[in-house]
Amino acid sequence: MPAPEWEKSLRAVAEVSPLVHCLTNIVVAGFTANVLLAIGASPAMVENPDEAGAFAAVAGGVLINLGTLSRGREEAMRAAAAAAHQAGRPWVLDPVAVGALAHRTTFAKELLRHRPTVIRGNASEIASLAGVAGAAGRGVDSSVESGDVVEAARELAGRSGAVGAVSGAVDYVTDGHRVSEVPGGDILMTRVTGVGCALGAAMAAFMAVTDDPFQATADASAVLAEAGGRAAAAPRPGPGTFAVRLLDNLAELAAEAVR
Amino acid sequence: MPAPEWEKSLRAVAEVSPLVHCLTNIVVAGFTANVLLAIGASPAMVENPDEAGAFAAVAGGVLINLGTLSRGREEAMRAAAAAAHQAGRPWVLDPVAVGALAHRTTFAKELLRHRPTVIRGNASEIASLAGVAGAAGRGVDSSVESGDVVEAARELAGRSGAVGAVSGAVDYVTDGHRVSEVPGGDILMTRVTGVGCALGAAMAAFMAVTDDPFQATADASAVLAEAGGRAAAAPRPGPGTFAVRLLDNLAELAAEAVR
Amino acid sequence: MPAPEWEKSLRAVAEVSPLVHCLTNIVVAGFTANVLLAIGASPAMVENPDEAGAFAAVAGGVLINLGTLSRGREEAMRAAAAAAHQAGRPWVLDPVAVGALAHRTTFAKELLRHRPTVIRGNASEIASLAGVAGAAGRGVDSSVESGDVVEAARELAGRSGAVGAVSGAVDYVTDGHRVSEVPGGDILMTRVTGVGCALGAAMAAFMAVTDDPFQATADASAVLAEAGGRAAAAPRPGPGTFAVRLLDNLAELAAEAVR
Repeated sequence: MPAPEWEKSLRAVAEVSPLVHCLTNIVVAGFTANVLLAIGASPAMVENPDEAGAFAAVAGGVLINLGTLSRGREEAMRAAAAAAHQAGRPWVLDPVAVGALAHRTTFAKELLRHRPTVIRGNASEIASLAGVAGAAGRGVDSSVESGDVVEAARELAGRSGAVGAVSGAVDYVTDGHRVSEVPGGDILMTRVTGVGCALGAAMAAFMAVTDDPFQATADASAVLAEAGGRAAAAPRPGPGTFAVRLLDNLAELAAEAVR
Repeated sequence: MPAPEWEKSLRAVAEVSPLVHCLTNIVVAGFTANVLLAIGASPAMVENPDEAGAFAAVAGGVLINLGTLSRGREEAMRAAAAAAHQAGRPWVLDPVAVGALAHRTTFAKELLRHRPTVIRGNASEIASLAGVAGAAGRGVDSSVESGDVVEAARELAGRSGAVGAVSGAVDYVTDGHRVSEVPGGDILMTRVTGVGCALGAAMAAFMAVTDDPFQATADASAVLAEAGGRAAAAPRPGPGTFAVRLLDNLAELAAEAVR
Repeated sequence: MPAPEWEKSLRAVAEVSPLVHCLTNIVVAGFTANVLLAIGASPAMVENPDEAGAFAAVAGGVLINLGTLSRGREEAMRAAAAAAHQAGRPWVLDPVAVGALAHRTTFAKELLRHRPTVIRGNASEIASLAGVAGAAGRGVDSSVESGDVVEAARELAGRSGAVGAVSGAVDYVTDGHRVSEVPGGDILMTRVTGVGCALGAAMAAFMAVTDDPFQATADASAVLAEAGGRAAAAPRPGPGTFAVRLLDNLAELAAEAVR
C-alpha cells in the first residue's frame, strides 16, 4: 500500500513542531490544543490585544475562530490578522455562525481585508461569506450540504485569494481553480464539540511546514478524516469514547508518519 | 418494563434538535456542549453583548450560568435574559456560587426581574436566592443538603414564577405547588466538573420541545441521573473514565428513546 | 514498602477538601478543575475584578496562571494577588510564556510585588523571571532543560522569597537553600494540554493544608509524577486515553492515601 499523500506533510508537522497561535473560543480551546499536541504541533492561545499582534507575527501559523467573540477578543483578532498578513504568516479564518448573526458577519468581512490564507467553515458559513442568499445556518449548524456550496466556495476563493474549505459529510477544498474532495470521516465527528474548530487549527499547523496552502489544507482535512474513521471503527463508540480515540489515533498517525 | 416518563421528552430533544443558547463559564463550556450534543440538541455559546440578545430571542432555550462572570459576560447575560423573556423563550438561571459572593448575588437578583423559567442550583445557592439566612456555601460547594431546602425552593418558585430545581444526592423540582423527587445519579457526578452546569443546559433543551417547564425540568434531571447511574456501574470507574462514560450513556439513552 | 513522603499531605487534601481559587486560562480551566476534584480539593474559578479580591482572601489557596490574559483577567489577578498576600493565603504564580512575550513579562514582574508563595513554570519561564539572558522560550514551550536552570531558580527563590518550581523531565523545587528533585512522570504529560497548569493548582491545594510551602510544592509535584507514571504504564496509551487515566490515577492515589 503506497503511503497516503498527506503523510509527508504530517511528518513535517511532527518533526518541526510548528508554533500555532490560536485565537479561538472558550468551548473548544482545550480540545484544539490537544489535537495540535497529538499531531506534534505546539499550540499557544494568546487572545488579548496587548500581545496578539506581536505573537501572530512570529507564529508558524495562526487560527482566528469567531466562536465566542468578545470585544477584547475582536480587538486581538484584528491585531493578529493584520500582523500575520504583514509578516507573511499563513492564517486561517473560521467564521463560526457567520450568516446567522449580523455582528459577526460584519466582523468576518472586515477580517477578510487582512487576506486569510484559508477560510474554513461549514456550508452555511462559506455560502454566507460568498454572498449566497438564504444560506444562513441556525446557530453553529449548517442548513445546507457541503456539496451544495462548492461553486460558492470556489467563487469566494477566487475573489478573496484564500483557499476555501467546506466541512461536511465530504470536505471540499478549493483555491478557486482546483477542487479537492476529502471523503472519509464519520458522523461522530459532528457529535463531539470542536472537531471542525480543531481542523482549522490543524490547517494552520500544516501550512506552517509547507509552501502550498491548498495542499496543506487538503492534507489536514484528510488526516482528521482518517483519524475520525479509525476512531469510529467497531466496536462503534459513544461520543465520549470517540473523542478520546480521535486524539489517540491522531497521535498514532503522526507516529506512523515519522517512522 | 414500561418506558420511563422522561423517554418521550428525550425523544423530542433528539428528533427536534433544539438550538440551546448557553451563556456559561470557561470551566464547563466544552463539557456542556458535549452533553447537549450527546442528547441530540444543538449547542451554541454566544456570550458577547453585541449578539446575545438577538440570539436568545431565536434560540429554543437559553442557559445563563454565572460561573465565571466578567463585565462583558454580565452585559451579555442581561441582554439575553431580557430578550428571552420578551420573546417568550424559556431560560434557565444557574446561580453558581450565589450566596458566597456578594457581587453575583446582587447580579442574580437583578436577572430574576427577567423571569427565568427555571432556577437550578445546589442547596446553598437556592437557599440564598430564597433569602434563607446562613445558607451561603463555600465557593461552588453547598453547605447544606438538597432535602433541607425543599421548602425554600418551593417558596422561591412561588414568588418568582420559576420552576426551582435543587441538585444534590436527591434532586428536587418544584413549581411552588408540586414537588418532584428525582433519585438516582451517583456521587461521581460531583467529582467531575460541570455535571450540574450541563444539567442546566439540558433543562433548556428539554423546555424547548415541551410546553411544561416543570415536567421538562424533572425529565432532564431524571435523564442525567439515569445516565450517571449507568456510567458509574461496575467496574466502578475513576472520574476520568466516568466523564467519558456519562457522554456515551447519554447518547445511548437518546438513541434508545428514538427507537 | 513504606508510605511515600507525599501521602500525608495528599490525605490532608482529600480530607480537608480545601477551596482552591483559580484564575487560569480558557484552555485548561476544565482539566484543572477535574485534577483538583480528583485529589479531593474544591476548585472555584472566579476571574473578574469585582469578586476576585474578596474570594482570594477566603480561599485555602490561590492560583494565578497567565495563560490567556485579558484586561479584565489582569485586573482580577492584581486584586487576587494583593488580597491573598494581605490575608496570608498561599498563592502560586504560573508565569506561562513569560520571556517570550513582553507584556506578560512586565505583568508577571508586577505580580511578584505581592509575594507569591510559589512560582511554578518551565525552564524558560523560570529563567526569564530570574533574569537569565537568552532563556526566552517559544510560545508556551521551553527552550532549555529544567536541570539547566536550577541555579537560576534558586537565585529567584532567594530573591523573591517564593518557592521556585521548575517543571521538566525532572522537576526541581527550591526555597533558595534546599533543592528537591522530583523524578518520575512521563513524556506523555507534555502531550496533553494543561498538566503543568493543573500542577500549579495542585500546589495551591497542598499549601492550603500544610504550613510548609517547600514540602507542599514538592509533594504536589511528586503526586502528579506518580499518577503520570501509572497512567502511562503498559499498554502504553495515546494522549486521549492518557488524560483520562491521569484523572483516574489521581483519584486512586487520593483514595489510597485516605485508607
